[in-house]
Amino acid sequence: MIKIKRPTLLLDKQKCLSNIAFMVNKAREKNLVLRPHFKSHQSHTIGSWYRNAGTEKITVSSMVMANFFATDGWDDIAVAFPFNIHEIEEANKLASSITLHLTVCSPETASFIANNITSPVNIYIKIDTGYHRTGLYPENTQVIDAILDVVNSSDKLKFTGFLVHSGETSKVRSREDVEKIHVDSLKKLSELRRRYENKWPGMIISTGDTPTAVLMEDFTGIDEIRPGKFVFFDLTQHYVGACSISGISIVMACPVVAKHPERKEIVIYGGAIHFSKDELILPDGKRVYGQVTELTDNGWSDKPVKGAYLCDLSQEHGIIRGSDEFFEKTVPGMILGIIPARACLSVNLMQGPVTTDNEKIDHFSTVKTQYGA
Amino acid sequence: MIKIKRPTLLLDKQKCLSNIAFMVNKAREKNLVLRPHFKSHQSHTIGSWYRNAGTEKITVSSMVMANFFATDGWDDIAVAFPFNIHEIEEANKLASSITLHLTVCSPETASFIANNITSPVNIYIKIDTGYHRTGLYPENTQVIDAILDVVNSSDKLKFTGFLVHSGETSKVRSREDVEKIHVDSLKKLSELRRRYENKWPGMIISTGDTPTAVLMEDFTGIDEIRPGKFVFFDLTQHYVGACSISGISIVMACPVVAKHPERKEIVIYGGAIHFSKDELILPDGKRVYGQVTELTDNGWSDKPVKGAYLCDLSQEHGIIRGSDEFFEKTVPGMILGIIPARACLSVNLMQGPVTTDNEKIDHFSTVKTQYGA
Repeated sequence: MIKIKRPTLLLDKQKCLSNIAFMVNKAREKNLVLRPHFKSHQSHTIGSWYRNAGTEKITVSSMVMANFFATDGWDDIAVAFPFNIHEIEEANKLASSITLHLTVCSPETASFIANNITSPVNIYIKIDTGYHRTGLYPENTQVIDAILDVVNSSDKLKFTGFLVHSGETSKVRSREDVEKIHVDSLKKLSELRRRYENKWPGMIISTGDTPTAVLMEDFTGIDEIRPGKFVFFDLTQHYVGACSISGISIVMACPVVAKHPERKEIVIYGGAIHFSKDELILPDGKRVYGQVTELTDNGWSDKPVKGAYLCDLSQEHGIIRGSDEFFEKTVPGMILGIIPARACLSVNLMQGPVTTDNEKIDHFSTVKTQYGA
Repeated sequence: MIKIKRPTLLLDKQKCLSNIAFMVNKAREKNLVLRPHFKSHQSHTIGSWYRNAGTEKITVSSMVMANFFATDGWDDIAVAFPFNIHEIEEANKLASSITLHLTVCSPETASFIANNITSPVNIYIKIDTGYHRTGLYPENTQVIDAILDVVNSSDKLKFTGFLVHSGETSKVRSREDVEKIHVDSLKKLSELRRRYENKWPGMIISTGDTPTAVLMEDFTGIDEIRPGKFVFFDLTQHYVGACSISGISIVMACPVVAKHPERKEIVIYGGAIHFSKDELILPDGKRVYGQVTELTDNGWSDKPVKGAYLCDLSQEHGIIRGSDEFFEKTVPGMILGIIPARACLSVNLMQGPVTTDNEKIDHFSTVKTQYGA
């Protein structure tokens, strides 16, 4: 095991490769195109692991991130975020060299692209089947038709299909809840397909979330999946039921710096600038940022410490509460493993993980100023 | 005004300089040493603005950050975070070249330092007068005495004094609430002083938070203040009463990318990786991440848009809700200003702001791998 001095985000490369292999196989088995979301890892290195597993198409969440991966040789990239018209110059540059897919949810934005794009570009229409973050309701066919009219009358725009992200599956607590969301979403999407596929042969339906991709078996009417979080998983995905603890490929290692018997609290060097303040609400209502697990010679234990949670964060401080036994044996200088509530934001803040074999994994955040971000 | 394409953290340099001047003058007037907390900005450039205003002593929150500022010529640095024994090598290196102050809250950590430090180093004892994050209760004189015994018997350690951070002042809603906390803290600290000053002449009492430093007038028994947040201020500090809206020196500028009439929601390009998920709870119970304000030719309006708040965040998406009038006139492509709930975490995520005159401000996060973090 590498020597830990400061908060360090550890990656178990074998677990990460297994997670990638699982999803590649599942997509193949279900006859789905896998277009994994690369915002979860934002790394050329981890991207190469996908490439070795046969992945050719990817999803990103911003134009600058698309550019980051295009420079690494990815040539079929979907930006699954409502197109920001101020980045038309960047879109033109990318569309001239790769197969670029943009996402829209208004005729105005579609028209702007049609009027300003200089190379062929592909258009996803963002559909909202229940997450209510962004996208058009599937019954809002008037606006969908208006967007398709714009696409139809442009010689540069091509309709890829409908894109949905059921992010609400990351907030539930069981396979049954995920299935309910999935079945409802499938129904709405199949109606959309029925309505549009005659006029738009070859259009696809693309769905996005990790719990659905992992837990569901029936993908009737779906052509493409875009999960991303499964590459690491985390405590939140575990509580949804999308992974076992042993499937989680990252853990934060943090030094204990103080203990306070009056409140039975352990203070670690590891705070909001390492974990992010995105909390998980446990079944009993407790708000946590992670769960403690013991580090081992070559990684960490798959049996987390019962009841020991990261309960509060300020900039560099983390507060851990646990059992009497845990409190007694934990002393300043010990290094605790913490399974994070939300992997992706931690990976972003930590500027990428380091493998348990001490290989630093590259991350977009260390170079993004080069991409104008 | 600079052209905004993507989420951009704007700094009004004049407001920032005024905030620094205000605090420098206040400390001088009250006969207090100002040792500002540099974790708020983590910038050599902004550090130089303090230096020009006469600041000589600074506070940081980690050993790597101490090193970052030492390389820029700062030679009296306090690390206001419980010492992490795994960084003794770094402490030795710094202590050999600058006046270094470490913070401890246990005899074990003090002994570790005494046994392993190779150059003279100064020790603050961390006291908890009510924030309950870390530190010793002032009545816990047995442990305080044990730490002082360690200091006393070491020829390398020197007792600087007691260090407290009343972080709970950032959670209240009025000057009166801040005063209550401050008066209670002063009382506890004066008892500590009475108990220890005969044996430790020259020991100081150091307090830390922005609301106290800004709003209070009576600092009897306090020698040093270490506020940091006042350099930017933010919506949270405004709701405490520590600043007017016009005193806030940073605003995030974000493009609108979608609007959804069904839910009267505006979607911006600007999410958890730009703002952080640290929320502010408004007096009416609403949880928000920021408030909308209009951008102007040379900055932004000091009159934020009434009722228009950043209400939800995912990785790149932000959701804004506001009045009917605000919703009607806001369209994709517009750039909205957002006064952030928490400035310091946004500054960290954005890797420093850019001034309204288009000067990019340096930030530790872009170089921290050079410092081993």
